[in-house]
Amino acid sequence: MGDEHAVNLTKSRGFFKKFTAGLKETFFPDDPFRQFQEQRSAGRKFLKYLQYFVPMCEWLPKYSLSLFFADLLAGLTITSVAIPQGISYAKLASIPPIIGLYTAFVPPIVYSIFGSSRHVAVGPIASCSLIIYDNISKVLNPDDDIVLYVRLVFTAAFVTGVFQTALGLLRLGILVDFFSHSTITGFMTGTAIILIFAQLKGLLGLKHFTTKNNVQSVIQAIIKYRSEIRWQPIVLGLVLLVFLQSTKFVRKKRPKLFWVPALGPIVAIVVSAVFTALIKGEDHGIVTVGHLDKGINPLSIHLFNFDPRYFSAVAKAGLVTGILSLAEGIAIGRSFAVIDNTPHDGNKEMIAFGLMNLLGSFTSCYLTSGPFSKTAVNYNAGCKTAMSNLVQAALMALTLLFLAPLFGYTPLVALSVIIMSAMLSLLDYHEFIHLFKVDKFDFVICITGTIGVSFISMDVGLFFSVILALLRALLYVARPATCKLGRLSDSGLYRDVEQYPNSSKVHGVLIVQLGSPLYYANSNYIKERILRYIRGEQASGDIIEHLILDLSGVTSIDMTGIKGLLEIRRVLEKNNIQVLIVNPRMEVVEKLVASHFVGKVGKESFYLSLDDAVMATQYSLQKARKSDEASFDTTDT
Amino acid sequence: MGDEHAVNLTKSRGFFKKFTAGLKETFFPDDPFRQFQEQRSAGRKFLKYLQYFVPMCEWLPKYSLSLFFADLLAGLTITSVAIPQGISYAKLASIPPIIGLYTAFVPPIVYSIFGSSRHVAVGPIASCSLIIYDNISKVLNPDDDIVLYVRLVFTAAFVTGVFQTALGLLRLGILVDFFSHSTITGFMTGTAIILIFAQLKGLLGLKHFTTKNNVQSVIQAIIKYRSEIRWQPIVLGLVLLVFLQSTKFVRKKRPKLFWVPALGPIVAIVVSAVFTALIKGEDHGIVTVGHLDKGINPLSIHLFNFDPRYFSAVAKAGLVTGILSLAEGIAIGRSFAVIDNTPHDGNKEMIAFGLMNLLGSFTSCYLTSGPFSKTAVNYNAGCKTAMSNLVQAALMALTLLFLAPLFGYTPLVALSVIIMSAMLSLLDYHEFIHLFKVDKFDFVICITGTIGVSFISMDVGLFFSVILALLRALLYVARPATCKLGRLSDSGLYRDVEQYPNSSKVHGVLIVQLGSPLYYANSNYIKERILRYIRGEQASGDIIEHLILDLSGVTSIDMTGIKGLLEIRRVLEKNNIQVLIVNPRMEVVEKLVASHFVGKVGKESFYLSLDDAVMATQYSLQKARKSDEASFDTTDT
Repeated sequence: MGDEHAVNLTKSRGFFKKFTAGLKETFFPDDPFRQFQEQRSAGRKFLKYLQYFVPMCEWLPKYSLSLFFADLLAGLTITSVAIPQGISYAKLASIPPIIGLYTAFVPPIVYSIFGSSRHVAVGPIASCSLIIYDNISKVLNPDDDIVLYVRLVFTAAFVTGVFQTALGLLRLGILVDFFSHSTITGFMTGTAIILIFAQLKGLLGLKHFTTKNNVQSVIQAIIKYRSEIRWQPIVLGLVLLVFLQSTKFVRKKRPKLFWVPALGPIVAIVVSAVFTALIKGEDHGIVTVGHLDKGINPLSIHLFNFDPRYFSAVAKAGLVTGILSLAEGIAIGRSFAVIDNTPHDGNKEMIAFGLMNLLGSFTSCYLTSGPFSKTAVNYNAGCKTAMSNLVQAALMALTLLFLAPLFGYTPLVALSVIIMSAMLSLLDYHEFIHLFKVDKFDFVICITGTIGVSFISMDVGLFFSVILALLRALLYVARPATCKLGRLSDSGLYRDVEQYPNSSKVHGVLIVQLGSPLYYANSNYIKERILRYIRGEQASGDIIEHLILDLSGVTSIDMTGIKGLLEIRRVLEKNNIQVLIVNPRMEVVEKLVASHFVGKVGKESFYLSLDDAVMATQYSLQKARKSDEASFDTTDT
Repeated sequence: MGDEHAVNLTKSRGFFKKFTAGLKETFFPDDPFRQFQEQRSAGRKFLKYLQYFVPMCEWLPKYSLSLFFADLLAGLTITSVAIPQGISYAKLASIPPIIGLYTAFVPPIVYSIFGSSRHVAVGPIASCSLIIYDNISKVLNPDDDIVLYVRLVFTAAFVTGVFQTALGLLRLGILVDFFSHSTITGFMTGTAIILIFAQLKGLLGLKHFTTKNNVQSVIQAIIKYRSEIRWQPIVLGLVLLVFLQSTKFVRKKRPKLFWVPALGPIVAIVVSAVFTALIKGEDHGIVTVGHLDKGINPLSIHLFNFDPRYFSAVAKAGLVTGILSLAEGIAIGRSFAVIDNTPHDGNKEMIAFGLMNLLGSFTSCYLTSGPFSKTAVNYNAGCKTAMSNLVQAALMALTLLFLAPLFGYTPLVALSVIIMSAMLSLLDYHEFIHLFKVDKFDFVICITGTIGVSFISMDVGLFFSVILALLRALLYVARPATCKLGRLSDSGLYRDVEQYPNSSKVHGVLIVQLGSPLYYANSNYIKERILRYIRGEQASGDIIEHLILDLSGVTSIDMTGIKGLLEIRRVLEKNNIQVLIVNPRMEVVEKLVASHFVGKVGKESFYLSLDDAVMATQYSLQKARKSDEASFDTTDT
């Protein structure tokens, strides 16, 4: 082959070019500025900018009446979910139920303007409500000073808003990438388990309970306060639970009847409230929500409290729920966007979520995200645009202005059962089996999250699950897979000898494909691995005289990696083994040249293809056969 | 091509096989049991075991008189380094100087038995001496209760010993792998800088000084106590410094005179001690070490103190210095072993270092490792085996028994200057320039360590440097490099179009080589990257109908990665782009099969070589050309 087919050792990009390319890949993988550059006139450029930063400007001009009817239906359906969820999740956070309703009014308006997804229906989420309580109750018991506690919850929402907006503006979507599918599955399952257990308080009608959120504390509390158990709420609760579960069964049998389970919770609330009022449930141990005021969200911007005694707990609650609700909300939005092939932009979502929490915290709302249950209902109800969130907001405003007091008659047991039922559908053991079958490490990450969250605490469970996932990434870098290559007859192809047992080895030559990257964490390992291959070949009677390193897959190398390659070469040369390097990638060549590696080993050690390298070894082996006395001293390396 | 050249989709290893293979690669990359299996008879097997666990059994039987003469010379030379280093590093740790001498007696004996390297000369090291002081002085000022302080230092050495032995037995050498070349360079440079500054106390003859180890505190202290500066120690110190530096200059000019700088420190001590005694230096502000007792190491096993008030600081000192001294000692041993092609085994070294510190802590020694300066001297003096350490121990025993009191006349300024001179040779700005030229990220890791250690504190500097290195590994996983491939004319080879500008693209086909691994942290990114490539092709006027994904370099995939591939396929199919997969590796195939990916996309989507896949696309493109109306809707993905 001619010179045109040699390894290109001259191509080198300047530092600035490499640096900006690196930044772009890290923070702008979706290339957001492309569309602006395409536009010529200033006016159209402005419009594109506006449409980029305010997605509403993109869909609203094309909006039609038929789309509105679809969105109206979807909006009606999600509102019927929003009311029970608002009240019950607020109870999880130990804040007055009315705040849960407020939270379904302002944030949906903000999201409909800035959100990029067409399916996400916003509102409070169960897991984060619990985390807020978990963190803030450590510094202030809500029973001691509920007014101050609520102010701290608003402050946490404010922290979340600032944090999420900043992440979006700084294009740090990369942080969310580090929540793996398994971490989220494990965390959500663990949350579902402990939420189901925690609802036993309401179902059994207990007055006292534990404030700790783990399974064993809940069981201990039930045993301790067993004398408080009343049969009346249990009966009412079980009836409602059976009703709710059977509505889901209906949808499973007839997917078209998706609205049956969606309407289930509001029906359960209305029916049980009327029933409780009729039988004077309070006299029989069936406690109700209590007084709810009329009126839409009051301002809360003057209520923030940055008192250093509480702020570290508040900030922790805000940051943890901020990143978690983003990870969940973005993952959920993306899943539906993929199904429908509609737009979804992680960085825009971050900004939308951030603004939603920021403006929410000014108007008596607490943490908002895109909960899975509500979003699924929205999707199934046939929503077309973010207008369904506007419909939700409008209906919620009407509810707050006229109907709120009526929801005060809701029995607590109904709320508990609604949460239980929602959480039961999150328990998906199939996913665990699937993970176990496909990837044991993913399974361990997932089960660690589940067990940690349900038996220790939400923070600890999540922390260990994320740490395990990071450990996996680090372990990958520390031990990148290498393999020996053999030749597939006649094809000129070289493949893993273990994967293709019919491949044949080249006598006297060891061909090793290195895994990527060659970094400090593995340069030692790679040396040991290669020496082990050579000893193995020797043991099987083949005297190795050439080592061919296939670098096709190595996309990155660092200083320690370069030193490692030099070390390998030095050790092998002492043992009369020549090292040939095949197809290094651009990033690698640049550094090998800059570090004088290429100068030291010589250009003639580089080959563009495995075939070229093998041919070169065969030529030099023929020459060497005459004086065949090379031997490799393994014991001393 | 026939069936034999299709992707092998059937090869799948059992979980147990994969798991043990994974464990072996992670913890036993050097395959330590190989040699035992090779032996047949029980006796030889036992001998091999003994030689494995006690390397002395390997070299001692072959030992000869000529080897001993070489080791004797080396031992003499390193003892002359050991005495000044012992005294001066003990001062760094704020413990009585005699402990520094004790530390050059017991640990070398242990190392000569268990150490695998032939070059490492053991003794205390400067950086760790300072870290011990840094940590323990936070809970107990040595001036307040020196007896208790010394007990805590012994306890820290005990902790180090247990920790290092455990690491070795658990084969956790992988931890040491995470100290990169750049981290160690940066840390050592930073330590050298702050040690040089800290020696100004001795050089200027100051009585008061700061206890903080950072450059600005030292400068402030000098300004604050400038009235205490005496000219006499300055003059003596500068004379000695010029002498020591010129001995190094001699070696540089004549490498054979390596013993000149090696003897420099002991000469400096003897001459300056005699001079100080003659001129009655104490009257002129030249302070000496003071009384030193005769006698070898007393037992200290009964002195350990695990008082919980101090233990967390003691444990931290023990663990940090334990891992750090291992990283340094192993790296140094390895560098010399590579030069000479002599044995060196990281896991054995860990055990040897651990036992050395364990037995050392029982016999009044503090933390011991293989310091760079001493090891380099040992190597240059021509040591052949670990016998040189035994010689060091014997000479040190004689010194302790008979000469110790004489070293009490050493002026402190001489010790300061010896440390300064040793540290000056660690400052290597060439290495920084080299790092800057080759790898900017490595440079940042290195400079962070240097600046952090010298201006903030040793722990903080090291911490940030390690965190940056970990971040780099994580960033690698989050953004593995992909590239577009083009065909090199006639060769059947496909290479990066940016690296090989003469490669030509195949019309209607986009060939992308994915980087490894496909993990949760990058599955999103890879999707965006591919869509961006497709938009780019479209913008340049080529309508893409086939996407070929080259997985040759992808050595690992997880659940999120598999879901990502499915997502890419779903999005592209909606846009009438077919996805072909080329040469997936065994680890990847196993998971793609287990997760039903192969079942979903069909076996016909898999190709063994890029050429096969391109040929397949050309065939289907010809068919498709007739109805050429496919278009790709980018705005909606």
